[in-house]
Amino acid sequence: MNPHLSASDIPAGFTFAATHCGIKRTRLDLGILVSDVPATAAAVFTTNQIVAAPVIVSRENLRKAHDRMRGVIVNSGNANCCTQQDGYPASVAMASKLAEELGVDRSQILVSSTGVIGAPLRVEKILAAIPHLALVRSAEAGSFEEFARSIMTTDTRPKWATARCRVGGRQVRLLGCTKGSGMIQPNMATMLAFIATDAAISSPVVNRALRTAVEPTFNSITVDGDTSTNDTVALLANGKSAAPEISRAAGADYRAFSKALGSVCKSLALAIVEDGEGAQRVIEIEVRGASSEKAARQVARTIANSPLVKTAFAGADPNWGRILAAAGRSGVKFNPANTNIWVAGLALCRGGREHPFDERVAHQAMLAKYVPIRVDLGSGKASARMWTCDFTIEYVHINSSYRT
Amino acid sequence: MNPHLSASDIPAGFTFAATHCGIKRTRLDLGILVSDVPATAAAVFTTNQIVAAPVIVSRENLRKAHDRMRGVIVNSGNANCCTQQDGYPASVAMASKLAEELGVDRSQILVSSTGVIGAPLRVEKILAAIPHLALVRSAEAGSFEEFARSIMTTDTRPKWATARCRVGGRQVRLLGCTKGSGMIQPNMATMLAFIATDAAISSPVVNRALRTAVEPTFNSITVDGDTSTNDTVALLANGKSAAPEISRAAGADYRAFSKALGSVCKSLALAIVEDGEGAQRVIEIEVRGASSEKAARQVARTIANSPLVKTAFAGADPNWGRILAAAGRSGVKFNPANTNIWVAGLALCRGGREHPFDERVAHQAMLAKYVPIRVDLGSGKASARMWTCDFTIEYVHINSSYRT
Repeated sequence: MNPHLSASDIPAGFTFAATHCGIKRTRLDLGILVSDVPATAAAVFTTNQIVAAPVIVSRENLRKAHDRMRGVIVNSGNANCCTQQDGYPASVAMASKLAEELGVDRSQILVSSTGVIGAPLRVEKILAAIPHLALVRSAEAGSFEEFARSIMTTDTRPKWATARCRVGGRQVRLLGCTKGSGMIQPNMATMLAFIATDAAISSPVVNRALRTAVEPTFNSITVDGDTSTNDTVALLANGKSAAPEISRAAGADYRAFSKALGSVCKSLALAIVEDGEGAQRVIEIEVRGASSEKAARQVARTIANSPLVKTAFAGADPNWGRILAAAGRSGVKFNPANTNIWVAGLALCRGGREHPFDERVAHQAMLAKYVPIRVDLGSGKASARMWTCDFTIEYVHINSSYRT
Repeated sequence: MNPHLSASDIPAGFTFAATHCGIKRTRLDLGILVSDVPATAAAVFTTNQIVAAPVIVSRENLRKAHDRMRGVIVNSGNANCCTQQDGYPASVAMASKLAEELGVDRSQILVSSTGVIGAPLRVEKILAAIPHLALVRSAEAGSFEEFARSIMTTDTRPKWATARCRVGGRQVRLLGCTKGSGMIQPNMATMLAFIATDAAISSPVVNRALRTAVEPTFNSITVDGDTSTNDTVALLANGKSAAPEISRAAGADYRAFSKALGSVCKSLALAIVEDGEGAQRVIEIEVRGASSEKAARQVARTIANSPLVKTAFAGADPNWGRILAAAGRSGVKFNPANTNIWVAGLALCRGGREHPFDERVAHQAMLAKYVPIRVDLGSGKASARMWTCDFTIEYVHINSSYRT
């Protein structure tokens, strides 16, 4: 899945490093992403009201230094959330220590944590590892790959994506990585994504571009409907490509960059679904013919989160009745008599009633890695698309196991 | 779980019968409940927009004859919903045939179906069986128990409940049965409940009493968050106890009857959760300290439907972080710093942070059949209670199996 990375994929002026500092037992658990020069930055965070300390610190820092961000520090294995001790000083200390090593202000660093909720973060282990990390960081592809590994929790593989585009005739590069595969014992929750680009983009525009890119990608996937307390997607644009600055959210340069950013976000988002806990297949849910995009999204989301739809897909069962019933309880008004449903390209339901189909053919088609559902509500022109994974016995295995 | 039934538990003037008419392979699949005299009746139906034909017919009949209902006919094995043929005439025919045998108008009969969605109902098998059913119906406890069995789909056991109370110094009896345990291949969905009483209750009051009883019972349980297309709870009051008529929704008689009705509804609702597909235990979720009852219900419902909470309970894992995170994404505003959580009577979270507890003790306590969660949001005086079951590997097994 991941494209092979070479040195030429790394955006100019970014370095990376990762290490095992002792939060996890043996695997990489601490990573940094650093820009040589101040970068404009934007980030979107969890909408859960229960917000982890690193999210609070990152929000504050972004408010102060969104036009001169210098890096990101991430630990995995502990979410620094809801602990008995106050998690806030620990997150501040992580930012401060990296800032000190880089000779910048602590507000210029974003902080993320992912892993167990409720357990105290042994921040001294992290602080002790930072000087070495700052020293060994490099622009090599291998360093980035280690960074991508260091943010993993229950992910079965690291996930990254690249894109290039031309801005003012010059090439700019985008490189992102992500982690997340549902929430796991005990709440190794969290979707994290970090995207670096050497494009030059003004501060308001970088914000606009990220928000636009996140909606049809990261905000359109669901593994189990549960929002984490630490979710973060951050974009740093350091301008080292020497391309002219994109200073308005319009025009060919903005469009080219947005398209490249959208493709990175989509690749990363789909990689999360594919690596969903216990997932065998990705389900794409396209709802058409809705009265508004909001309505289409609501129907798509209800189908995507229905345990009955997701378990049917685990068994490759062409159970269109569950899809229709989920749409029917979504809260969106539509006329079932105008509703058609296709699964894996086969028409299973026409006008709200069963359309004759061969069960064995449908079953076979649904055994694919990637199975589309299309629902046409026949009541408008708006559409939306979401992605989810099937709901398997392995998911329950993973999520019911007692914490050890 | 079911109380032992004797002849004295059967409300006066009600008879029952059940048979195997051939919709299912071998088990009972058709039942009738008949009142000797016209009964006032009330019913609540699915809120899903995809509505099965029997629900449409029952709604129409109830509108016409809510003050003189004579009986209920129910088939299992086929939901008569979303079929290629028009399901409506089949449901009308079921009501008409029973009405003909009883010598009453077809509007005096309620119709229910539960089972497969999308498959045509072979109504001729049902119609052929009705004359015999009408003939053999009886007021014996055994006949009622067969009726309770005939409405089952994937239920592992029949479910009934009884209550008595005094109205105007005379005893009245209530007897109800229910079916439902989630939705199953392919959508043997549907929660059905039928309650008979020999109390005399005026038509508007019977309606009010049922709606009041349903809210904190049937509307407060969830197995998988999926609403069926056929859900129905119906109450028939035939006045044969000779107790004075309850003609207003106030006063001691109304309160006594409502209390008895509430207890029947609660027993039946909890029996559904206990028999939830693959369920090992019932989880009671009590949310206190909310700003409104609506807010409390919304938080309780989000927790009750969280796959992460439900899988944690399958493993008896005291994972309070998932409970807090589910509350946090419920859409209800509250201050996590004021929030406390108890599971199985043990305080696990105080002020939004981990409260020290012994993992092994908590795990042991959560192995019970009945495990309460209490969440105090600390932001008001309203509360709500919901019940759900844990989410086990067996649930996925049941719901992912290919239709055969």
